[in-house]
Amino acid sequence: MDDSSQLNLSGERFAAVYHMPGSVAQVEALARDICVEQTVEFPEDLISRKDIHEQIIGRVVSVEPLEGSSPSGASVCEVAIEFPVEVAGCELTQLLNVLYGNVSLKPSLRLVRFDMPASLSSLYKGPRFGCRGLRDHLGTGARDRPLLSTAIKPMGMSPKELSEYAYKFALGGIDLIKDDHGLADQSFVRLEERVKCLSDAVRRANEETGRKCLYLPNVTAPADQLLERARFARRAGAGGYLIAPGLTGWDGMRQIADDEQCGLPIMSHPAFLGAFTTSQDGGISHGALYGQINRLAGADVTIFPNYGGRFSFSQDECRDIVDGCTRPMGALKTIFPAPAGGMKVERVPELRKFYGSESVLLIGGDLHRNGSDLVENCRQFAKASRR
Amino acid sequence: MDDSSQLNLSGERFAAVYHMPGSVAQVEALARDICVEQTVEFPEDLISRKDIHEQIIGRVVSVEPLEGSSPSGASVCEVAIEFPVEVAGCELTQLLNVLYGNVSLKPSLRLVRFDMPASLSSLYKGPRFGCRGLRDHLGTGARDRPLLSTAIKPMGMSPKELSEYAYKFALGGIDLIKDDHGLADQSFVRLEERVKCLSDAVRRANEETGRKCLYLPNVTAPADQLLERARFARRAGAGGYLIAPGLTGWDGMRQIADDEQCGLPIMSHPAFLGAFTTSQDGGISHGALYGQINRLAGADVTIFPNYGGRFSFSQDECRDIVDGCTRPMGALKTIFPAPAGGMKVERVPELRKFYGSESVLLIGGDLHRNGSDLVENCRQFAKASRR
Repeated sequence: MDDSSQLNLSGERFAAVYHMPGSVAQVEALARDICVEQTVEFPEDLISRKDIHEQIIGRVVSVEPLEGSSPSGASVCEVAIEFPVEVAGCELTQLLNVLYGNVSLKPSLRLVRFDMPASLSSLYKGPRFGCRGLRDHLGTGARDRPLLSTAIKPMGMSPKELSEYAYKFALGGIDLIKDDHGLADQSFVRLEERVKCLSDAVRRANEETGRKCLYLPNVTAPADQLLERARFARRAGAGGYLIAPGLTGWDGMRQIADDEQCGLPIMSHPAFLGAFTTSQDGGISHGALYGQINRLAGADVTIFPNYGGRFSFSQDECRDIVDGCTRPMGALKTIFPAPAGGMKVERVPELRKFYGSESVLLIGGDLHRNGSDLVENCRQFAKASRR
Repeated sequence: MDDSSQLNLSGERFAAVYHMPGSVAQVEALARDICVEQTVEFPEDLISRKDIHEQIIGRVVSVEPLEGSSPSGASVCEVAIEFPVEVAGCELTQLLNVLYGNVSLKPSLRLVRFDMPASLSSLYKGPRFGCRGLRDHLGTGARDRPLLSTAIKPMGMSPKELSEYAYKFALGGIDLIKDDHGLADQSFVRLEERVKCLSDAVRRANEETGRKCLYLPNVTAPADQLLERARFARRAGAGGYLIAPGLTGWDGMRQIADDEQCGLPIMSHPAFLGAFTTSQDGGISHGALYGQINRLAGADVTIFPNYGGRFSFSQDECRDIVDGCTRPMGALKTIFPAPAGGMKVERVPELRKFYGSESVLLIGGDLHRNGSDLVENCRQFAKASRR
């Protein structure tokens, strides 16, 4: 072996933290396998090069038993494994691969969080706006209170009809009006026409109110149209983007967040991501998925199903998302949690209490529930959010 | 409401089939919710337009109790729901959204398969080669037997060292030599140098053998580099692509499959996808995920963890993948299942018996196990595959 093939990595590492069922001894052995699985994926005893053992393969740094037990009843340990920053390269796709690629196929291993040194986190711009940037962008009316959001729907209505809703939502005090994530570029609700109509409607309302409500069209799209749609939307007057990274891939959203011609706030939608957290003992924690990974991938707001809605998250899981949105991640900005999924106006004071003012409250269909005066319904929503 | 806003959809529908725990009556009620959730996502009673009820909202077409019970012990029903083809639009991202977007967030609902009318399936080119096309592409030596595949690893070796492995694999009779999915574009194993070195090594071996072994570099990459890397790889002499759609997004792979300047066979890697099938009672079935969705997204070969390897799939789950690879899907070609994940040469006759000759057998690290003569080890693999 000539010297030229010797590795000379920095020695800097990032840490992935997993929960694994089993005793400390069992989990130590499994964790050792993960160190190999996520890097060389090769029988360790067949690797003769010392530098590969020392510089490439992951390293178990701690195994601690957790109090309580897993949903399946076994005891559970928290394991921290450190991987060389160079193995993750400079790419979000490969970083996610090291954190959770092949181990996703193991039934009983949950990625609960990760920590990166500045040499790795600085490779990611993360959220362009973040909490503070988005508040500044919205202006002085959007301080010391949760931001208010709603969705443009139902599918089947024409862009013109939907734009009447958008106009009223903006008049009524909504900050962020997002497309329903089911509005793509269907024959009956084309993206171009929709973005133009709704951007215009919200602009008119803003002129009347003097406020700055944003319209965020859904630019979730095929890989070869994603950037194009987002750039078009900005030119057409949209105020931000709704993107479902479960459909575009995480890096699709990152691409929009980083692109200078896009440059608008991003709300991330959880469509297609649910299985990552419903996996028993496995998958990815709510905080790592909806919080940390969304931040890495450039979301400014992360939408998720609130506890007690028509989905299934618990209060602890929702708190974990808030933690993922706000825990230190190098220079990456903190982002807004946006609890949603069948929320109702009467629950707003409770949500405000639970999430505090650093949140986006998202009410969809229920804004249509209390009579046909949408402007007034939005005002009731705004009023409830200030209690 | 003026006439111009009336919908005029074709009435053609595609069917999503789910498994849901509960009695027939319970599941019927839940299924009705799914019809709304995946389309209008809006309180049904607040939609006054008859055309939206009739033409947009999904429709429950059957609810049948299944024999046996779910892993959690409840009775389970199979539910077929039909959605209008226009709701899925012409985009893989939106089709996946309708099949499994928001319902992914429900804990107890599993997408088990889907069926599309020709008007929808014909929007997707699917696999460029498929089983027959890939065999034709490989030439007359690749008939009536499983194709043989291995992986280039371990990470940490230089492109030059790895190319010596590739040369020997090709001499020894491997058909498809793929990069390990952990090789991205790291500082110590740059993509360009690797693709050039390994493509050249495999070309030299092919000149000696007269056979046509393909080298498939991993082109999994950030969204803005994916197409570029795949096109570069072809120009540099690569024979195909390894892509992990769990990292790029499904449509990233579809983009490569459809691109005329790429135009090479694709092996799909399961990294990051595992949670979809480990979800208890939820997620997506092995057949729909590794089979059907891979086909829609243009994979020619789908890699998955074989039963009895270092992961956790059962024999039934592996059979379900074969079903997803081969069941009728309009004009979409059938694709190869590629059982992998800690496979050993001594298990090859058993694998051949289980999967038949219409498969790709993938052995990674174990090819290095029986002494350092890699050419001879590959010949043993080939010999075992013909038994």
